[in-house]
Amino acid sequence: MQIVKIGGSVITDKTKECTFKPEIMNKLAHSIKKSDKKIILIHGAGSFGHVLAKKYQLNEGYKNFGQIKGFSLTHEKVQNLNTMVLKSLQKQDIPAVSISPHSSVKLNNHELEKIDFKIFEEYLSKDFSPVTFGDVVLDKKLGFSICSGDLLVLALSEYFKPEKVVFVIDEDGLYTANPKIDKKAKLVEKASIKDLEKYSTDLDKHADVTGGMSGKINTIKKISKLGIDTVLLNGNKPDRLFKVLVGEETKKTIIYGEKKK
Amino acid sequence: MQIVKIGGSVITDKTKECTFKPEIMNKLAHSIKKSDKKIILIHGAGSFGHVLAKKYQLNEGYKNFGQIKGFSLTHEKVQNLNTMVLKSLQKQDIPAVSISPHSSVKLNNHELEKIDFKIFEEYLSKDFSPVTFGDVVLDKKLGFSICSGDLLVLALSEYFKPEKVVFVIDEDGLYTANPKIDKKAKLVEKASIKDLEKYSTDLDKHADVTGGMSGKINTIKKISKLGIDTVLLNGNKPDRLFKVLVGEETKKTIIYGEKKK
Repeated sequence: MQIVKIGGSVITDKTKECTFKPEIMNKLAHSIKKSDKKIILIHGAGSFGHVLAKKYQLNEGYKNFGQIKGFSLTHEKVQNLNTMVLKSLQKQDIPAVSISPHSSVKLNNHELEKIDFKIFEEYLSKDFSPVTFGDVVLDKKLGFSICSGDLLVLALSEYFKPEKVVFVIDEDGLYTANPKIDKKAKLVEKASIKDLEKYSTDLDKHADVTGGMSGKINTIKKISKLGIDTVLLNGNKPDRLFKVLVGEETKKTIIYGEKKK
Repeated sequence: MQIVKIGGSVITDKTKECTFKPEIMNKLAHSIKKSDKKIILIHGAGSFGHVLAKKYQLNEGYKNFGQIKGFSLTHEKVQNLNTMVLKSLQKQDIPAVSISPHSSVKLNNHELEKIDFKIFEEYLSKDFSPVTFGDVVLDKKLGFSICSGDLLVLALSEYFKPEKVVFVIDEDGLYTANPKIDKKAKLVEKASIKDLEKYSTDLDKHADVTGGMSGKINTIKKISKLGIDTVLLNGNKPDRLFKVLVGEETKKTIIYGEKKK
């Protein structure tokens, strides 16, 4: 089984609130179907979640009643995006089934407190493709907060020990600097966790512009420590997803899982 | 706290697949808001669920792989209906939050095996209005089956002991016979559980035409045994919902909860 995380910046227009990109999602769904591989899919909320979550400061926890309205609006919009992702998958005959974090996940001060792995397991055992997503959720300490797609990727990786984890992003992979602002930035084709630590100071400096590459590197480190390879690839070239899922060569970054001693 | 179940036949056109009736839902949401009462809302799936569920025989459990596709299609359509219900509620400034059964409920041979009452409790404690709905779910014995809105009403009533349970249906209430085919049918204004047993043979004979009144009577009997009153009222007259929620007189059927000895 492989875990695929499709970034919100790939399937939504981050500059326009609640704008889905069905063509790209359809093509990614086609790549998944063609690969004929068992996967758990996680998608980001993109412009369906971030705009409202920021406006209502949902990640800072409960401070005033107005945020309750903001939480309600946000989870509805993200659920709407999820429904469109489901439709794209179904068009390719993928029996997708949604597991919504606002109905089932609980955090405690931004850390995972409760998640129902069994339901993923059961849907997988019946040959469904479980789909979950970055969402607003209850938080034991804060009242509520944001459960990012990357947090779900890590939790599911720890539990399911997938063959590999694939991050579908809006760049060709990981660069030595932010490619959007630094022309000298080079694509990192292969890296160990140690190499990553070498790059990460530079990346941390620039990367937030691309939508949280900094946090993602932390997640990747933890996945690597589980002995699992992580691949980053460009979602705007959907065939690369197919190639990575079936194990063919393509443009990407691979960060090797740490070998167990 | 009161539990309100809005029938699928009220907010969808049962004769046309996936046809939502936003005007009626908006008016019902307005009545709920105006009442200023704490509620848990449950809605049926109507023509977003029943057509596909029947086509793929989803309530009979896992028999062939084609049903997996049917399950996927059904839960996506029902989730879509739920999103529209959320939007109607939000338009009236009700901070609705969805708890989707396909993400959190499990049955065992059509009976409830697992439901997360705590998440309802927590959302309620933060002044959200939890919304759940009839859906397709995993089933321990059958693989999967249908979790009806009425089953959720009963489970939530047992746990939360609401002030009353309100069924919003597409008739004025309970009749002595099926009002759609029998002109002599009379509205039952008040009934005890014993009266209900007197009528129920007749009702059972005719009632399935109205969309499962027979099963509903069984549910009502169980709610009554908890000592909780049940009201049935016409959703096409949304002001009646307001009146019942605030305790004013209106056309309806009330079935009294059994007095504890």
